[in-house]
Amino acid sequence: MAGYNLEGIEAAPLKDDVDIVIPTIRSLDFLEQWRPFLQHYHLIIVQDGDPSIKIKVPEGYDYELYNRNDINRILGPRANCISYKDGGCRCFGFMVSKKKYIYTIDDDCFVAKDPSGKEINVIAQHIKNLETPSTPHYFNTLYDPFREGTDFVRGYPFSLREGVQTAISHGLWLNIPDYDAPTQLVKPRERNTRYVDAVMTIPKGVLYPMCGMNLAFNRELVGPAMYFGLMGEGQPISRYDDMWAGWAAKVVCDHLGFGVKTGLPYLWHSKASNPFVNLKKEHKGLHWQEDMVPFFQNLRLSKESDTAAKCYMELSKMTKEKLTKVDPYFEKLADAMVTWIEAWEELNPPVKNEASEELNPPVKKTQSDGEDVKAKG
Amino acid sequence: MAGYNLEGIEAAPLKDDVDIVIPTIRSLDFLEQWRPFLQHYHLIIVQDGDPSIKIKVPEGYDYELYNRNDINRILGPRANCISYKDGGCRCFGFMVSKKKYIYTIDDDCFVAKDPSGKEINVIAQHIKNLETPSTPHYFNTLYDPFREGTDFVRGYPFSLREGVQTAISHGLWLNIPDYDAPTQLVKPRERNTRYVDAVMTIPKGVLYPMCGMNLAFNRELVGPAMYFGLMGEGQPISRYDDMWAGWAAKVVCDHLGFGVKTGLPYLWHSKASNPFVNLKKEHKGLHWQEDMVPFFQNLRLSKESDTAAKCYMELSKMTKEKLTKVDPYFEKLADAMVTWIEAWEELNPPVKNEASEELNPPVKKTQSDGEDVKAKG
Repeated sequence: MAGYNLEGIEAAPLKDDVDIVIPTIRSLDFLEQWRPFLQHYHLIIVQDGDPSIKIKVPEGYDYELYNRNDINRILGPRANCISYKDGGCRCFGFMVSKKKYIYTIDDDCFVAKDPSGKEINVIAQHIKNLETPSTPHYFNTLYDPFREGTDFVRGYPFSLREGVQTAISHGLWLNIPDYDAPTQLVKPRERNTRYVDAVMTIPKGVLYPMCGMNLAFNRELVGPAMYFGLMGEGQPISRYDDMWAGWAAKVVCDHLGFGVKTGLPYLWHSKASNPFVNLKKEHKGLHWQEDMVPFFQNLRLSKESDTAAKCYMELSKMTKEKLTKVDPYFEKLADAMVTWIEAWEELNPPVKNEASEELNPPVKKTQSDGEDVKAKG
Repeated sequence: MAGYNLEGIEAAPLKDDVDIVIPTIRSLDFLEQWRPFLQHYHLIIVQDGDPSIKIKVPEGYDYELYNRNDINRILGPRANCISYKDGGCRCFGFMVSKKKYIYTIDDDCFVAKDPSGKEINVIAQHIKNLETPSTPHYFNTLYDPFREGTDFVRGYPFSLREGVQTAISHGLWLNIPDYDAPTQLVKPRERNTRYVDAVMTIPKGVLYPMCGMNLAFNRELVGPAMYFGLMGEGQPISRYDDMWAGWAAKVVCDHLGFGVKTGLPYLWHSKASNPFVNLKKEHKGLHWQEDMVPFFQNLRLSKESDTAAKCYMELSKMTKEKLTKVDPYFEKLADAMVTWIEAWEELNPPVKNEASEELNPPVKKTQSDGEDVKAKG
């Protein structure tokens, strides 16, 4: 482990720096099981669907709750950028948070156990992932070199060992795997029983399918790029909210020189959603992803885009230019991306003082900048 | 798992299609412990150092053994491309083999156990890795989608699920990790005790440090790019033989559309080499890798290079052009790369008939072939 010691981290690390964002349409009883790990954190609950339904939050949790009426009141006409009747509404919670880190989790997820039988503290692991550097420029075959008991292997250039700041930590799921509807239909009984004891950096220039079920990120670095799109009611697509956010946030991280990790921690995903319902929600996405993925793989952001918000505005333009030919939906999405950034900046004003520098950090000149890496320091 | 079922593979899978290449300067007693897994395979032993020393091979193993006199006799003046007093001499074995697959292993490596206590059949796992496709164009968060019990996750484009043919399978090591001399000196007691139950594709465009200790590859696809360089006696550098081969073979695979995997299987690496001796062998490499890695990251091979051999010839030119300014050594290395290809083609003549097409296959975009190429050496 190269210079970081986060072992023995306490039960609720950085509790004043983390908000937990939960989108829900139902009871939050799942939080009962999470008490040992989540009760010390502040919750931001985004209530989807009918605002007149009363969501019950287990006692002892500190929370704020927003339903659709609240979103409309706070954002006014800009509220139309927040999805309705889709888990993508969670990104409203990212916007109203004032914390450094966000952890977001689905309400059908429970505490998993590691192979020794110990319950997994998901936030503690995500914090480790986020507080230690990423290594996007070269692959370390023994995985995360910043973990206790391991390091960079022979043949890893020393100039790359400092790594880069981590912006995203993508956790995984035991039990029900995150499959699309066709795969669910073909393999209704497949369960993920394999605990892979690793965290790794997703290399620069490589895309991945980011799932919103068990996700943490540094909102100061990458918050404005964590927009979960226009999905659900009134839209032709659902279940691509996290995918869109993941592709966008990855290209923004690559451009700004931040890292993205995936792997530990696992949680227990309890319930497979209905594959026929999912198929209806996804079918356009299954088709469009054949264009969306190459779009994100091939785009290059400009040097002028030196914050996540600026990157995202540029991405909106590119979306309109390149994807509208796939479907007119993308024009609407591109406009919503602009609205999202306007709303973000209204709620998180980029003031000219030290505090704002942290909310909108300038790009550091490390090994980034959309150019190929020079290992030479 | 997407369409491949290799579970229940027998103890010695594809035994007529695999040669095991072992470089050694000493007794091969380590093969005693490997009997259950390696005895059914043919060995190619490359004896390094003094050719008058008699290497003892445990009874019952089928083998051919080459010492320096044999190499000189077989290659004539071209023998100077084969390293002396360095494990890099193993690549001579790759050249004289006629098999589809090579597995190469160091003589200080032993059978490891998985977490259930079962002894690991390294070749069976390497064969699984090599016989199932790789997915270099997009990252699958549940790791190898071709493994039993898992698949591609939501958000994985269907057009990419066929994958590409796998050319290299890089296995790992429990106990003594493969550290460079500075890391060995700083952490003399660090041991790798973590079994990460995963195989993954190293994405296209991403380099990694390939270790020659536990390595398998498809020599029909990528053999000519598996040159372990000029190291050891008479050279300014050692312990970068596998690194050089790994970087070169990775860019060749990326260019030709083949995949590279890393992860399982583990073996047990018994003995840390002397860090002070290693520091002397490595010190130029530690410095030069700061130029070698960006060289490989930035180069682009031409369309005309449509076989591993042609790619390697082009790479030799680029090495001369771009790296000679780092040190005159690279001019010598570039010349040796040409000699290597000449020798390879002499021993593996690209004849104009069907059989030769399979020995020197043109780039294919699909899964291919298999059974006809079994010429026993």
